Amino acid sequence: MTDPGTRSSAAELLIRLDRDVATPLRVQLEQALRDQIRAGVLAADAPMPSSRVLAADLGVSRRLVVEAYEQLVAEGYLTSAERSATRVGSVAPTAGTAVGDEPWIPRYDLRPGLPALSEFPRAAWLRALSHALRQAPDSAFARPEPRGSAVLRHAVADYLRRTRAVVAHPDRIVICNGFTQALSLLTHALPGPGGRPVIALENPGTPGRDRTITLAGGNWMPVPVDSEGIRTDQIPGDAHAAVVTPAHQFPLGAVLSPHRRAALRDWARDGRLVVEDDYDAEFRYDRQPLGAVQGLAPEHVAYVGTMSKTLSPALRLGWLVLPCALVEPVARAKRAQDVGSPVLDQLALAHFMDSGAYERHLRRIRKHYHRNRDELVAALQRHLPDARVTGIAAGIHLVLRPSGDVDADRLVAAAAERGLALTSLTRYLLGDDRDAGGRVVLGYGNIRSGTIEPAVRTLAELV
Amino acid sequence: MTDPGTRSSAAELLIRLDRDVATPLRVQLEQALRDQIRAGVLAADAPMPSSRVLAADLGVSRRLVVEAYEQLVAEGYLTSAERSATRVGSVAPTAGTAVGDEPWIPRYDLRPGLPALSEFPRAAWLRALSHALRQAPDSAFARPEPRGSAVLRHAVADYLRRTRAVVAHPDRIVICNGFTQALSLLTHALPGPGGRPVIALENPGTPGRDRTITLAGGNWMPVPVDSEGIRTDQIPGDAHAAVVTPAHQFPLGAVLSPHRRAALRDWARDGRLVVEDDYDAEFRYDRQPLGAVQGLAPEHVAYVGTMSKTLSPALRLGWLVLPCALVEPVARAKRAQDVGSPVLDQLALAHFMDSGAYERHLRRIRKHYHRNRDELVAALQRHLPDARVTGIAAGIHLVLRPSGDVDADRLVAAAAERGLALTSLTRYLLGDDRDAGGRVVLGYGNIRSGTIEPAVRTLAELV
Repeated sequence: MTDPGTRSSAAELLIRLDRDVATPLRVQLEQALRDQIRAGVLAADAPMPSSRVLAADLGVSRRLVVEAYEQLVAEGYLTSAERSATRVGSVAPTAGTAVGDEPWIPRYDLRPGLPALSEFPRAAWLRALSHALRQAPDSAFARPEPRGSAVLRHAVADYLRRTRAVVAHPDRIVICNGFTQALSLLTHALPGPGGRPVIALENPGTPGRDRTITLAGGNWMPVPVDSEGIRTDQIPGDAHAAVVTPAHQFPLGAVLSPHRRAALRDWARDGRLVVEDDYDAEFRYDRQPLGAVQGLAPEHVAYVGTMSKTLSPALRLGWLVLPCALVEPVARAKRAQDVGSPVLDQLALAHFMDSGAYERHLRRIRKHYHRNRDELVAALQRHLPDARVTGIAAGIHLVLRPSGDVDADRLVAAAAERGLALTSLTRYLLGDDRDAGGRVVLGYGNIRSGTIEPAVRTLAELV
Repeated sequence: MTDPGTRSSAAELLIRLDRDVATPLRVQLEQALRDQIRAGVLAADAPMPSSRVLAADLGVSRRLVVEAYEQLVAEGYLTSAERSATRVGSVAPTAGTAVGDEPWIPRYDLRPGLPALSEFPRAAWLRALSHALRQAPDSAFARPEPRGSAVLRHAVADYLRRTRAVVAHPDRIVICNGFTQALSLLTHALPGPGGRPVIALENPGTPGRDRTITLAGGNWMPVPVDSEGIRTDQIPGDAHAAVVTPAHQFPLGAVLSPHRRAALRDWARDGRLVVEDDYDAEFRYDRQPLGAVQGLAPEHVAYVGTMSKTLSPALRLGWLVLPCALVEPVARAKRAQDVGSPVLDQLALAHFMDSGAYERHLRRIRKHYHRNRDELVAALQRHLPDARVTGIAAGIHLVLRPSGDVDADRLVAAAAERGLALTSLTRYLLGDDRDAGGRVVLGYGNIRSGTIEPAVRTLAELV
């Protein structure tokens, strides 16, 4: 037996039990002891007060203390050996924690990539969720099917056939969590030397895709873009896949020209894969949208669409329409990466599409963006008449090149000082290429209509 | 000019325009032409009827046909060269498609791993979703934060501190899509030779984790399990991490013994990581649940919890509580893999937890499972008195070893013939180890109460 004199008392342990709360006294005691041990107040290997002493100090039954000690022995906070005192276990102290960033909320937000956040159809989406929760069979609450819920794959196939001229049988479709996951899954599914496929990326293009490919074990290479879209003649012959935005190049805004489309198709038919990122095809203002490249060569194109530009990137809902040979490899990667996408969201989206709510939303929001675009283009002509504005035929962003010798990065920094958020083209350049040619990218998806005029006036003052 | 005689007429093209539907005639014509071209009815390079001829055949304006041709030239279905006829482009025909599997619905479902699907709290979950949709600021519809919504990280931290003795500051937490994604992200975030960490897995254990580690670029090795949990003395010294189920080993059911807990903690403190899969700690029937190992060494343990056993695996909601040094690497991997988890689901879960609805659900469902367990154990004692039943202290499954020399795989196959679904222990064995010792795993999460007795009677007849 050890000397009780070396042991702490309950008072020294700073233990206070509160009889007025619902938490049982034993649980309170255990929590207090864990905290003291982790905080280092009770050092490793120090003897604990005997259960009799501690019970008396705290005014509780000895049995309660014994049970608390047993629990903490089982958890590893205390140790006990036969015929000796219960001692403090060896518990690592807690290190400091990281601190989260506060997001900047600008006065005028012309950053590209976001849809109109205030136009999210909250009521219609809740109706779709409610429908899904009421109608789903119990089996919908089991583990998801990696390829996605059949009802959503049917709804997506129907929508894509009708609106995007995509060859879209439900059995070719895998539901995913947006373009980023689609690219991750494709990188895993593609064959390549040592399992490392080489994937060509448009430059400039959406940021982060290089990191997605690298994380998934692939290699990437940049391919330049001009006013006809991706330079198909510069896609390296040893690339296994090329990620393209044919309907509206991101961010430069070109529509892929017919002869480049043909060149891309021929390149892919030679055993390669085109990854078609159809990110904003729903928004084309001055003429009918172009059908997808996938329709020309469905066994050589992986078509990717999402809800990120039409509804919200917060939903994380997208789809791949795949060559038949890639369906199983992509589904296997999805299973091993995250099992499958959330089922209720999928059922809600299926109802949202099948009920016509999605196309109603698109008609409404398309008018909204059309108005925003016209207002922005007019304001730019008024305040920056010598600037060049391109990429306005579709989407929810455009490219602005102010006249004269402008450093895009410095312009963006100066604008931020005035509460105006816009993005330098440098943000979209891959690798070491840092020459933005003085261009900035302006998004008009999420700007409130009345603020376009003052935002452009602010910009003009800075140029 | 080419010879009009070689061109097909509209009748030969089998084009029927329907004036009674809302789809514009031009869109109908384009769709029909795309279908004919893809089906090979119109061969590559064949000349198209002149716009004048086709317009007359169809009884539409010539302008409409010209516009349709222009659209299809832009899309690549047709080609046109100056001063010659429009011709059919080169479009690949469509290959056959894969066929999905029909799931088997057994009469008696004793497969482990599923919670009670019919007990999903549909009304309460809808209230949580509705609350999230009504209360969310517009910014909730932007791109998600890779670490997860702050409000959910706070709710999870609060819950884990209170119920699982986890050191759980919100800044240590990353929200993910379930255990599988947690393991994928950790594999990416761990250092290892050539970026390939070696991860120890319990054997037997949950299937598929080997594939998740391999896909994410890691290597795995099996570690045996006995009645005290994982054999800590057999975790290889060169492993970088070990995935363990200390509260209730899956599938064998052992609770990790105090001296193994200490050994695990010491192993991890030597620069390694314990991945604590706390998959069913909420269900412990005969005594209080053990606190998490993470509390003993928060800088050396990645704690993973999910909603898959307590609510539904279809929700795909889980969390990692990380050593501070791993928060950024895991968040970076999450961003590159799928940007972030769906935001509305996160906000709904935060409300579900903060409002007390989650703990109400847990109290109700815990009673349900307790009843199922008692009923199953009693039925097994009645009908298979010589069998050994283990792992019943917690969770929603147990392990059964019938007396005598039983081949578990053949027993499972014979049971399936009688409409009874159960699982051989072989399903959980890793690598080449195929010896299940005649054991089967019975889940009682998703079986309806009245069917336990006849299910066990059927099983007894087969043994």
